Order: sequence, then C-alpha cells, then structure tokens
Amino acid sequence: MSMRSPRIGVFDSGVGGLTVLSKLVELMPGAEYHYFGDTARVPYGGRASETIIGYSRQGLNYLASMGADLLVVACNTSSAIALPTLKGMFDIPVIGVVEDGVGVAISHARRGVLVLGTRATVKSGVYQHAIAVQRPDLPVRGVACPLFVPVVEEGLANAYLAEEVVRHYLQSCDDFDYDAILLGCTHFPIISTAIRNFVNKDVSVLDPSARVAERVRTILSGFSISSRDQPDIHFHVTDASESFKSVASMMGFSNVDQVTHVDVAGL
Amino acid sequence: MSMRSPRIGVFDSGVGGLTVLSKLVELMPGAEYHYFGDTARVPYGGRASETIIGYSRQGLNYLASMGADLLVVACNTSSAIALPTLKGMFDIPVIGVVEDGVGVAISHARRGVLVLGTRATVKSGVYQHAIAVQRPDLPVRGVACPLFVPVVEEGLANAYLAEEVVRHYLQSCDDFDYDAILLGCTHFPIISTAIRNFVNKDVSVLDPSARVAERVRTILSGFSISSRDQPDIHFHVTDASESFKSVASMMGFSNVDQVTHVDVAGL
Repeated sequence: MSMRSPRIGVFDSGVGGLTVLSKLVELMPGAEYHYFGDTARVPYGGRASETIIGYSRQGLNYLASMGADLLVVACNTSSAIALPTLKGMFDIPVIGVVEDGVGVAISHARRGVLVLGTRATVKSGVYQHAIAVQRPDLPVRGVACPLFVPVVEEGLANAYLAEEVVRHYLQSCDDFDYDAILLGCTHFPIISTAIRNFVNKDVSVLDPSARVAERVRTILSGFSISSRDQPDIHFHVTDASESFKSVASMMGFSNVDQVTHVDVAGL
Repeated sequence: MSMRSPRIGVFDSGVGGLTVLSKLVELMPGAEYHYFGDTARVPYGGRASETIIGYSRQGLNYLASMGADLLVVACNTSSAIALPTLKGMFDIPVIGVVEDGVGVAISHARRGVLVLGTRATVKSGVYQHAIAVQRPDLPVRGVACPLFVPVVEEGLANAYLAEEVVRHYLQSCDDFDYDAILLGCTHFPIISTAIRNFVNKDVSVLDPSARVAERVRTILSGFSISSRDQPDIHFHVTDASESFKSVASMMGFSNVDQVTHVDVAGL
C-alpha cells in the first residue's frame, strides 16, 4: 500500500465535470485533485470526432504532466468518442463515465431508457449499444439535447427558459414508453429540476457521477488517503473568464480564487 | 489600377460570417474569396478577451498566408474585442463590422437603439460608446443574447423555441423606448424573423452586412474585378463537422463540397 494520498486528475470540456468532482471529494476528501476544464473550447458535443479526440488528448496530457495517479474523463462526449483511442496512451488508469451510466441505467430501468446527451455522444451510439448488449430486452432511445449545455453554461438552468428547452427536446419522445432518463452529459444534472418537472412522477432521472466516484475509490484502494478538513483542489482552465469561478462557487467549491489559466494547444 | 481580381479574406468564429460573405459576393461576384470559420472553437462571445484576441490573430494570420489583399473581420465579437489590438499587425487593410453597425444604427434610429450582441461584445461597450459619440442625444441599450448563437448553430432559428429565446432576452427591455434594433452579431440576421415577430411593427431590425460590403468595394476600387458566372469561394474551417456544410448550403452557397479542414492553433 502506498503511504501517500492519491493525486486524481479530472478532465472536462468546461464546468460540467464539477458535478463529478463534487462526488469524488464527498467520498475521498483527503485526496489531491487537479480539475482541468477546457473552457476556451467548450462545448465539445457538436464537434467532429477528430477534434474531440485532439482536444481530449491535450487536456489529459496536461493532467498527466501534473503527476496524476489516475485520470477521470468526466466529459461524456470525450468518454464516448475519445476514450477508446486515448486509453492506451497513458500508463495510469483512465476512467470514463460511460460504463457507470450504463450500470445505473440497467439497474433502475424496467420499461425503457431515454439517454440524453450531446449530439456527438448520442450519435456515437455508445450508450445505446452497451445497454443493448447487457439488457437486450430493454428499449433504449437516445436524444441529442445540444442546447442544454449553453443553457447551463449561461446560468439559466433554473430560469423559465430551461423548461421550454427541456420541452423542445422531450415532447418528441411522447411515443416512447420510458421509466428512466439517463443524464449522459455532466452538465445535465445541473438542469435536472426542469427535466423532473417535465416528466411523469414515476420516471427516475439518473446521474452516474456517484457511481463513477465509487469506482475510482475502489481502484485507488491501495493508497492511504489522508484525512483533511479542507479538500486540496487545484483548478486549471483554458479560458480565464469569470464564469468558471461563479459556477464553481455556486456549486460549493470554496477555493476558486486559485484558478490557473493554461494553454494546452501544443500538448 | 491593378489588373487582377482582388483576393478577399473573411474571418468569422463559425458560420455567422456567411451572412457577410453573401453580401460581398452579391456586390463583387468576380472577386476571389477565402472564408475562414473557427468552427472548432466557436462560440467566442462568452470567452475572455485574451482568448478572443489569440484565436482571432491565428485565423487572420491564416487568411493573410493565403495571400489576401484585404481581411474582413465579420465576427462582431472579434471586431469589438480583438481588432483594436490586431489591426496594426497586418500590412493589408483589416475591416471590422462595428463602424458599419454604428452607421446603420444612427441613420435609422430616432427614439432609441437596442444593440443585441454576444456577452463579450455588449460588455465591451464598443457600440454603445461609438453611438453616444456621434449621437449623444440617442438613447442606447446593449443586451447580451448569448443563446442566439447556439440556437442558430443548431439550426433552430425558425423553430418555436427561437421565439421563446427571443422573448427571454427582449421582454426585459419593455421599459426602454426604442425604434431600432442593431443586430450586433453575424449570427443574428439568421434569427431575425423571430426578433421581428416579437417587436412592434415600427421597430427597424438592422443588419450592417450590406454596408460592410459596400465599404469593402470602395476600398478595393483600385482593383479590376473580373466578371464570372460562378463565384470563386474557398472555405476553410477548423472543425470538419457536417454542420458547416449544411448551414452554408442552406444559405445558398453551392460549392460547399470543397471545404478545407485546417489547424491554426500554432499560427
């Protein structure tokens, strides 16, 4: 067993991965965290696969250069599109979020699953395929919701407009019988109140991030995690805008004054 | 007088500048055009100034390397934030869109002007300041409409949702007496039907692009522009996604099969 605390790198396209970081910190407050948000190039979800792979590689290279013991690809778009290509390039574990999304969906759904994600994630068919392999009897439909990310990034998740945006995408699914919605994008838990308000009471709205955090704890069980009052979190972003800080502090992160502005285009 | 046709470089963050390119081609069908859309990093409007300046410089360097005789910065965010810094770096004319926006606004407005733009453009105060200098008596209000760009990029400009997004931003201006709306972003002409539907009949909705094109023609009057049936347009984008082609052909551009995928991060 290693006597030191693990250093965990969390990669995301922007602010969305903070929902995963929250769960990790809750479970392992004594670990050291490096969060990378590619805020200068967010959103990834409408871009071509080769662009998503290139941007993800640069961000992961940056986190690896920080000495991370494990990398979490919190961004579903990167997990779905880039992870199969990039996984083998690192000599430390690289954890995506897709398998936990699949796990939480098949353990909750009985009648049908609606997978909400970005255009790239839904088009990849990664969730639909993995669920079909494990539960061939379970109907699955993917719905691309490309406006959810800008609505969240603009801080409008609790505005009336969010309800209209949710309606725009979900009303086309009235013909599909589902009892579970899988939030297949790290931004979507932030807009989940509007989603819950739209759907029937018997529909579970599922966020995989707690399950991701538990898996990371299992993988790192060989480390000795120190006990700390204040979590040790370092933020690294590619755009020095104020909006990252405001979203992060809204989500309860207290040390957002220490945000490092980095350029990863050459990595 | 130069005996050859001019080569015009048009820079934009994404697809929005195609509205300016259309007007240029209409006025000067015999010129040679190189359109650069930074589709891998769009939208610019919510990013920090230093990021906007860096991205704009790379795109303009790329167009200059194509041998352009003149550069048009179609993107209002770049025109407002980056142009003052970048203008002196090139030995060819670099034309922004702000002064034409100001010109069209002060020639049409009597009671008041509402300037719609991205967050960065509105926050810069460039339009508000320039209008106040030329017409101190004319009330001006800037309104950041950050969701207009994603709505346009997602092809939803004519959907019901566009009307709701327009309402979200414009209903807060009920207390302001205006008879002109300046579309301070190249994407916004594409959503102008929804804007017109929301405002009173006596409000002019103003797009500066025709005026930009006329100014470019004046500057290039020393060139001999050849007469051609088919305009000579080359498209260069940083993301190879299909959406650029579909928006461009929706806007009437016929040669969108020839889109070059370029990487400008090192320029």
